[in-house]
Amino acid sequence: MIPATQAEPAGRPIGVFDSGIGGLTVVRALRRRLPHEEIIYFGDTARVPYGPKSPETVIRFSRECFRFLVRRDIKLLVVACNTASAIALPELRDSLRVPMLGVIEPGISAALAATSTRRIGVVGTEATVASGAYERGLRAADPAVVVAQRACPLFVPLAEEGWVEGEVPRLVARQYLQPLAAAGIDTLILGCTHYPMLRNVIAEVVGPDIRLVDSAEETAAATAGLLARLGLARTDPGGPGRVYVTDTAQRFATIGSAFLGRPLQEVSVVDQGDLPWYER
Amino acid sequence: MIPATQAEPAGRPIGVFDSGIGGLTVVRALRRRLPHEEIIYFGDTARVPYGPKSPETVIRFSRECFRFLVRRDIKLLVVACNTASAIALPELRDSLRVPMLGVIEPGISAALAATSTRRIGVVGTEATVASGAYERGLRAADPAVVVAQRACPLFVPLAEEGWVEGEVPRLVARQYLQPLAAAGIDTLILGCTHYPMLRNVIAEVVGPDIRLVDSAEETAAATAGLLARLGLARTDPGGPGRVYVTDTAQRFATIGSAFLGRPLQEVSVVDQGDLPWYER
Repeated sequence: MIPATQAEPAGRPIGVFDSGIGGLTVVRALRRRLPHEEIIYFGDTARVPYGPKSPETVIRFSRECFRFLVRRDIKLLVVACNTASAIALPELRDSLRVPMLGVIEPGISAALAATSTRRIGVVGTEATVASGAYERGLRAADPAVVVAQRACPLFVPLAEEGWVEGEVPRLVARQYLQPLAAAGIDTLILGCTHYPMLRNVIAEVVGPDIRLVDSAEETAAATAGLLARLGLARTDPGGPGRVYVTDTAQRFATIGSAFLGRPLQEVSVVDQGDLPWYER
Repeated sequence: MIPATQAEPAGRPIGVFDSGIGGLTVVRALRRRLPHEEIIYFGDTARVPYGPKSPETVIRFSRECFRFLVRRDIKLLVVACNTASAIALPELRDSLRVPMLGVIEPGISAALAATSTRRIGVVGTEATVASGAYERGLRAADPAVVVAQRACPLFVPLAEEGWVEGEVPRLVARQYLQPLAAAGIDTLILGCTHYPMLRNVIAEVVGPDIRLVDSAEETAAATAGLLARLGLARTDPGGPGRVYVTDTAQRFATIGSAFLGRPLQEVSVVDQGDLPWYER
């Protein structure tokens, strides 16, 4: 029998943060891989999107949201937003008393495992691409890798509008991705949690010879690995978890369910004025 | 000669608010019509867009921004954002000690003047359309009017991405607007300050028999009328004005200049934590 003092840390929930609801694709992957874990999700839906905004704003907003989750006694924080992972996580890692995991490193590892030509493409928000986080991480692991990047600002609104099949997303994807495909990549990192919603169209445009790396699946695998290493994996089923958002518009439940792959249950709305606000 | 005590009120600036930079189209129209007026612009670029968010959030954010402008001693507040005009202005009008003007009423008056069939279309953000503000206003003025509405969430990101000509915006516009055109409207209100950027494509899709009503021009005309009625119009040239934003990403200057129709000058970034926050 495990003593209560040892069992307790593993029994705490995992916190998952995203600027909006795209991170629910990570929750979906986590649920499949770690069905016993209790997950607290926080989506900053009142201030979404982070992708077109400045690093200062991304860090400021992320700090508030991370602290909200840390105060809910989480054992691990999964930053399920590429923009926040690229920009805020490196800045905030040292100031929080909880292990943290972003979506960038898992995507990088998976891409390096998948490539044979060492030519890797990255698509993401403007902020993620401008941060250079993927390029830096890929080059640090293998200096011979050639990286081709492209910001795809319209992918997020297309996914949120539910226009994930058909002529419009196909044309948009073609405009963004053909220059990347022409750069001779054999692997493409979908560096935004919304992009897997457009996976079919993206795959069609880049063709069957380019492998797509989905951060959600890779991040769930990395989370399982980290929990095991830290001795923090649950062995018995946890609670149902909870979803917090800063704004709940009508569309949230509908789109959220599509991202999560099942109906969204209870959603709590947090007044943004009540978010912790330290170290300004 | 006008005594100083009377001249002073007219010498104060006009405040223009938008959730982002779309309202610069209103500033452009104001500058053309009222070249002597000094304009203080405030764009809540850190929390843009308001269009997909709930009424509670739109009101909360708008209240902070309106008060920021009121504290800058403006003589008139122009709410150059359809979403905030539809949702926040009716809620906040009584609590601010300054004359206020939104973009909804000017658009309604212009549409009623333009229509001969009394079948009027309205396009806007999800929040604007859901508020029913245009429909209510049109019907209050003329109960016989038939209103056909449609939210066009992708128009804003298309305009911000600068994709305002070509196949993608044409296809998107067709998908949104063909049902409206088929409803037999003869007038279409562009109920979002971003949409005039897509005017050419919209005009092409709906055809030459449907008149487009641009809130920016109509609002500038209404502002001129209100200033004259209140005796607050400037007669001598005022200062160059000022642009405040809550976030300044790289793209702001580029897109802002396109909206404004000339290079953006000095832009001040306001820490959102410093916004006035009353009456929660």
